[in-house]
Amino acid sequence: MAESGSNAIRFGILGCAEISRKVARAISLSPNSTLHAIGSRSLEKAQTFATTNSFDPSTKVYGSYDEVIDDPEVDAVYVPLPTSLHLQWVVRAAEKKKHVIVEKPPALDVKELDVMLNACKANGVQYMDGTMWMHHPRTKIMTDFLADSQRFGHLKAVHAIFTFLADDYFLKNDIRVKPDLDALGALGDVGWYCIRAILWAANYELPKFVTALRNPIRNDDGVLLSCDAALHWEDGKIATFHCSFLSHLTMDITVIGTNGTLHVNDFLIPYKASEVSFKTASKCWFTDKALEWTHKSSEQVVSTDLPQEVLMVKEFSGLVDGIKFRDLAPEMKWPTISRKTQLVIDAVKVSIDKGLQAVEVVY
Amino acid sequence: MAESGSNAIRFGILGCAEISRKVARAISLSPNSTLHAIGSRSLEKAQTFATTNSFDPSTKVYGSYDEVIDDPEVDAVYVPLPTSLHLQWVVRAAEKKKHVIVEKPPALDVKELDVMLNACKANGVQYMDGTMWMHHPRTKIMTDFLADSQRFGHLKAVHAIFTFLADDYFLKNDIRVKPDLDALGALGDVGWYCIRAILWAANYELPKFVTALRNPIRNDDGVLLSCDAALHWEDGKIATFHCSFLSHLTMDITVIGTNGTLHVNDFLIPYKASEVSFKTASKCWFTDKALEWTHKSSEQVVSTDLPQEVLMVKEFSGLVDGIKFRDLAPEMKWPTISRKTQLVIDAVKVSIDKGLQAVEVVY
Repeated sequence: MAESGSNAIRFGILGCAEISRKVARAISLSPNSTLHAIGSRSLEKAQTFATTNSFDPSTKVYGSYDEVIDDPEVDAVYVPLPTSLHLQWVVRAAEKKKHVIVEKPPALDVKELDVMLNACKANGVQYMDGTMWMHHPRTKIMTDFLADSQRFGHLKAVHAIFTFLADDYFLKNDIRVKPDLDALGALGDVGWYCIRAILWAANYELPKFVTALRNPIRNDDGVLLSCDAALHWEDGKIATFHCSFLSHLTMDITVIGTNGTLHVNDFLIPYKASEVSFKTASKCWFTDKALEWTHKSSEQVVSTDLPQEVLMVKEFSGLVDGIKFRDLAPEMKWPTISRKTQLVIDAVKVSIDKGLQAVEVVY
Repeated sequence: MAESGSNAIRFGILGCAEISRKVARAISLSPNSTLHAIGSRSLEKAQTFATTNSFDPSTKVYGSYDEVIDDPEVDAVYVPLPTSLHLQWVVRAAEKKKHVIVEKPPALDVKELDVMLNACKANGVQYMDGTMWMHHPRTKIMTDFLADSQRFGHLKAVHAIFTFLADDYFLKNDIRVKPDLDALGALGDVGWYCIRAILWAANYELPKFVTALRNPIRNDDGVLLSCDAALHWEDGKIATFHCSFLSHLTMDITVIGTNGTLHVNDFLIPYKASEVSFKTASKCWFTDKALEWTHKSSEQVVSTDLPQEVLMVKEFSGLVDGIKFRDLAPEMKWPTISRKTQLVIDAVKVSIDKGLQAVEVVY
């Protein structure tokens, strides 16, 4: 894999979103990547953004997104734009042979996403959505636990939560509450992580049915601020999630198998970037007279030199490097799980729109 | 309050259930209580049970339940019989002026429970169900957290889980899978705790609607082995629970408010009887660029000299003592929350039986 230098993958960023600050830093910290350009609809805004965030003076600053994707030196773009703009810019970037990391949710529905994915495929570029926790080394270790027939057994139930308490400014102004920008609201933003977590726990087996739960909360423009849903598999597995902009910051995955249980309470953004933990329990039972447990869950600590967002960029750039320099094909895992997540998002939305009917998920 | 001795409340136990071993021990350890009698339909079984469990030789051993409730020296009975027998024996005990602790679920439905509660009321005896964790000092401390408008804020969502992996013997023979004994199956057994936890978190405000989730699992006799439901309040609060005999031992309550979150992973039987913990988080947010959390949840450890089942007996005997020696009235908190829990159980059952319709909960 290329180290930062002449072979480093050169990124352009489309837009000065808050999340761009985090990803720009991640690109700079990733050993095989470099921040080449930032573009905004306003050159002044892009310049201020570059200065405020101490971008290297060599970083190109553009007053349009087109200039970023037209720059022949840009290998890959990061697209943190409002969801309603993803289709247009991901397709245009792919057509210019730019590899793409797109912020979640990637699309307003899977029909849009398929256009994007087809454009990436047709142009041989790597697609990845910006679900950073997938790249944390903890995730791999937890995956191994869930795959362990002795320690975990067969998956039976998952519960996922992502909530944060949006302030008044957010609830009035953030793109995630605007019907023309991020029409999926809390479902697309915080719900995305819950659904991804559930699919991850199910080894990406899609549920057969999805049912939204009663009383989703919307703002005056009809954008979801809070909702819940249940996912059902044919073998009896069940998952539920709760996502909301209206409750204290909470991010849990609880996964229960026949032999074991996994708990993680900071799954998508770690309490501490350098060191996280999770808890597993296996084959617990009660002592005589059910006075207490035979043993409690054990906590496992995972350290990482590079934060998960850097590992995401590094993983992506490694794949781009393979395509660019070693004639490899794009890694299909990332578009595949992105599409599955979007399919479930769509099903939850349809269920809500159809008065909480069970909606069949068709791949 | 009377100390163990002449004024100690004298208990009779109806039946040699496995749980009777735990409660007999609790009665012996409680400073204001004494185990006076054990009765079984078989005298031999009762004698063996008394010997095996090292009951004090002064403990009376009867070959019928009637002899226990007819014993004028018995102040209170503990009823661990199968649920289908609760109505008969609680009413008969109350009519003999015996105070009653009844194992959960107290009844097959609230109509039955009301007959039992009316009998207790008419005879001036204390009623309490055997939900032991209500009496752990941790529960009071967690209650205080949930009542704190600064640290916790307004309740928004609860998720409760109680599952354990029943073995083949249990699934074939346990009373909890027999339609004529404990027809409510997993809902009445493990689901009871989830529902009580949710009501506890909601300060016992009943939900307006209850909806069972898809695909409850039943055995060949139609008894529930696993089910899920959602509870909905008019102010938008939501709770979900998962209860099952088919998954690894897990017992979680997650409670989310506007300002804080509570996590407890051993809520109904503590990991260790003498020392437990729970986690709270308040006003968490992200650091700059959302790289990590401003602070993580904090764990609070609670020690207790007496295990929760002893504290249950002690609390109950204190109330009985007040009625017996100080002319106090029965404490209505316990029948009230028992009835509310049963009402929600009933609503889940009706929702399942009516194809997952939302069922209104009417007090």
